[in-house]
Amino acid sequence: MRFGKTVFVHSNLQGNIVKIRLIAISKTSQSYLTEGIDVFEGRIKRYLPFSFEELNTPKKWGTLPENKQKEEEGKLLLSKISSDDVIILLDERGKSYTSPDFANFLQKKMNSGAKSLAFVIGGAYGFSDDVYARASDKISLSKMTFSHQMVRLFAIEQIYRGFSILNNEPYHHS
Amino acid sequence: MRFGKTVFVHSNLQGNIVKIRLIAISKTSQSYLTEGIDVFEGRIKRYLPFSFEELNTPKKWGTLPENKQKEEEGKLLLSKISSDDVIILLDERGKSYTSPDFANFLQKKMNSGAKSLAFVIGGAYGFSDDVYARASDKISLSKMTFSHQMVRLFAIEQIYRGFSILNNEPYHHS
Repeated sequence: MRFGKTVFVHSNLQGNIVKIRLIAISKTSQSYLTEGIDVFEGRIKRYLPFSFEELNTPKKWGTLPENKQKEEEGKLLLSKISSDDVIILLDERGKSYTSPDFANFLQKKMNSGAKSLAFVIGGAYGFSDDVYARASDKISLSKMTFSHQMVRLFAIEQIYRGFSILNNEPYHHS
Repeated sequence: MRFGKTVFVHSNLQGNIVKIRLIAISKTSQSYLTEGIDVFEGRIKRYLPFSFEELNTPKKWGTLPENKQKEEEGKLLLSKISSDDVIILLDERGKSYTSPDFANFLQKKMNSGAKSLAFVIGGAYGFSDDVYARASDKISLSKMTFSHQMVRLFAIEQIYRGFSILNNEPYHHS
């Protein structure tokens, strides 16, 4: 591990151990996405504890009205959240960052004493009001809309990129 | 095929046939990206002629200084471009669109009489001045930086999404 910008990661790993969770509503449906996610999961784990968690949703929820579906998904999600988790929603209405700014965002959250950063990807219709109420931050990956399936790959790549920037590693030209 | 918003696609397919090219510098290195790209390639071809073209670059170019590498890649790229191609660069410094706005952009380009829209993804260091000079438009997919490998998947998904919006298909909740 290099020092310089990485010192705080180092100190966090020694003192306040930050865990990163990436939580997605429903299973990942495409094998190429699962494969890509696996690649970045392995890389992030070199930096700190990380888990990618897909929440199994009953098939019948797909037939529910939009709002009811969001509500059920929200209840399931909140049941998986502990008081240690700082919730960061990946949301179209969220703030957009450059990758270096996102790295700074990660750094600030880690320095704030958070024990766990939980990034959450909603279902096809987004989040319920209860989920919004519990969240600390909303981040938008792009003005463009991507499927809630594909967002998983984008999100995990950006989380990896964020830590690679904080560690001064040259991933940005990979 | 449905009508309504799709009429112009229909008329384009009958009269001025628009071809879409997605051109990327260097081979796609990850199999999960190739798989994902194949999925969307098949879907776009339901709408209109489409090709995904990876330009083979000699390995030794990787050892060239940044500017020289961009220059060589630029020459190779321009040798594959015909006067029929309207060049649209996927570029960090480009204009950002929402997905519906990007669909409108596609529509306008098609209505302008363009025969071929060539979207171009650069190499690790971006584009040479000669390529910028030849391009009609620059589009940014996100404020965030993605690897020039992963951008292929994001770009092809947005091209597909654009045509699905123009055809009033409900992909946006898939």
